[in-house]
Amino acid sequence: MKEKIAILGAGSWGTALAIVLANKGHSVNLWARNKEHIENLKCNRENAKYLPDARLPHNIIMHTDIYDCIKECSVIVLAVSSQGIRETLVRIKGNVTKDQIFVNVSKGIENDRLLRISEIVNEYYPDSKYVALSGPSHAEEVCKGIPTTIVSASKSKYAAEFIQDVFITPTLRVYTNPDIVGVELGGALKNVIALGAGISDGLGYGDNAKAALMTRGIREIARLGEAMGANIGTFAGLTGIGDLIVTCTSMHSRNRRCGIKLGEGMSLEDAISSIGMVVEGVYTTKAAYDLSKKFDVEMPITNEIYNILYNNSSAKEAVSNLMLRSKTHEIEEAMEDFANEW
Amino acid sequence: MKEKIAILGAGSWGTALAIVLANKGHSVNLWARNKEHIENLKCNRENAKYLPDARLPHNIIMHTDIYDCIKECSVIVLAVSSQGIRETLVRIKGNVTKDQIFVNVSKGIENDRLLRISEIVNEYYPDSKYVALSGPSHAEEVCKGIPTTIVSASKSKYAAEFIQDVFITPTLRVYTNPDIVGVELGGALKNVIALGAGISDGLGYGDNAKAALMTRGIREIARLGEAMGANIGTFAGLTGIGDLIVTCTSMHSRNRRCGIKLGEGMSLEDAISSIGMVVEGVYTTKAAYDLSKKFDVEMPITNEIYNILYNNSSAKEAVSNLMLRSKTHEIEEAMEDFANEW
Repeated sequence: MKEKIAILGAGSWGTALAIVLANKGHSVNLWARNKEHIENLKCNRENAKYLPDARLPHNIIMHTDIYDCIKECSVIVLAVSSQGIRETLVRIKGNVTKDQIFVNVSKGIENDRLLRISEIVNEYYPDSKYVALSGPSHAEEVCKGIPTTIVSASKSKYAAEFIQDVFITPTLRVYTNPDIVGVELGGALKNVIALGAGISDGLGYGDNAKAALMTRGIREIARLGEAMGANIGTFAGLTGIGDLIVTCTSMHSRNRRCGIKLGEGMSLEDAISSIGMVVEGVYTTKAAYDLSKKFDVEMPITNEIYNILYNNSSAKEAVSNLMLRSKTHEIEEAMEDFANEW
Repeated sequence: MKEKIAILGAGSWGTALAIVLANKGHSVNLWARNKEHIENLKCNRENAKYLPDARLPHNIIMHTDIYDCIKECSVIVLAVSSQGIRETLVRIKGNVTKDQIFVNVSKGIENDRLLRISEIVNEYYPDSKYVALSGPSHAEEVCKGIPTTIVSASKSKYAAEFIQDVFITPTLRVYTNPDIVGVELGGALKNVIALGAGISDGLGYGDNAKAALMTRGIREIARLGEAMGANIGTFAGLTGIGDLIVTCTSMHSRNRRCGIKLGEGMSLEDAISSIGMVVEGVYTTKAAYDLSKKFDVEMPITNEIYNILYNNSSAKEAVSNLMLRSKTHEIEEAMEDFANEW
């Protein structure tokens, strides 16, 4: 199987996927908004800015014209930041055929409108097939061929399996999942918890505290997800707890690194600029906070992170609020529904 | 509330809990089988061997006589390795009253007989109350007062809440859970997965692969747990995924460190002796393997770890078997029950 594939966005993940697909023998077109960045990739055959040390194979063609990039491609990969998706979709409007499958690899929720990426794409291309590709997959490892598992999720079984076939390699294992809502929410919301995990690390708390935060984090994500129509099983899988684990524990995670800076006392502005790339979780925290209100779901961790980012709450106090609650004889959260077993 | 508490076993966890309880004002009696070790603790007021840099408060009394240690104590904490529990229970037989509550803090399953610790205690003391204290709680952090959450699990609500009150401090948060089967199995079986996580790290695989292993690991633990009568919700909590996370990612974990050595090519014998303390997961892997046969539950990770430890399988091949399965169009494991959504 050899396909012609367009990748829109040449950050670390877009570049890594371009390399994987090109090495598999597909023809890959790569576009980014920043023309200078694309010219650099073309000349140097490497992405020194976002993915150092990885060579771009010759069958990746760089494009500064987005129409040329997507023309005659069977797959259009959206690899721009989640807040930039709508703008990118507007750019290509009128130039997409309904046979072209959209694959989104960004992880976020549109702020203010509170839309998942599939919902944004659906506004412009209601007849197109859409796949979310998500899971524990740091770009730095994927492009080196270090074993990684991801999930191809779609309402369309055909599209999910087609994209599985397009992306699967001996070291990049792709599984399918019909629950697009759960996959999109898990991927986006774990970045909020990763900020919290980083803050905990930055404050000098240990592995015990972070594990507790992550355990409770996936529960509040699942609670919101269930209220929004997701299948609860998805949050126990690769795109739920799997992605949460990798994002909260790896130094590859920008969201965690941003959290560490916040925990060490840096301002939000300085923390973001020290990372030098988009920190999705900062936007997602606002969206998650708004969603928790909209769906009336209790999300104590999201709430505390929101207050640190947007209300100048002290990081130390926030983590204390979460860890050191004063209720006595409290049953474990995961078991609250089963208290009648006694 | 001031209680008189016996702790049997002066390894890192027994010592850390002795310090926490003594600092809270309880009277603590500490016993270990090795008399020389107890004499050292008495003279030096620190446990240089298992928990360096922590001072033992004056209200911890060392005992070489186990009867003196447990006499008039309201709580008897079992802090010996799981394979040594039976021997310890035999030692005190005839000297325990039914008002004394047993608290087990070791994490394992008795090999050959395949009994959980509560089942062993029940053989000797069927009228006693029993609590399992478990969760993501490395001793090195707990004794320094770094925030930690644990779970007090018992069939008896009274006992679970009494032990919660005995152990809770501003930084050690204790929650209750009625599901003793799930809590015991989660704490024991995560060590098998931690060996696997270490092996993956030792082989030079990355964070993506390890997150996938952990995600699938908690699923196979939960499958076995359900077959054995546990509540599935427990595995989503602190003693399930929480403890799994901390054990698979922290360098404090002996099981993970042992796995790293195996992944680097060291023999099992050398790996164990390089750790210098009991590596529970090595025993638990055998028990888990036997339990999976007994209850007819598929446990692919346990199976591969068992073959590495006991059948000289190559670590590299085992991890490859797990990660790089060849089936195509495979739906995500967590979602297999929901394939009909398409």
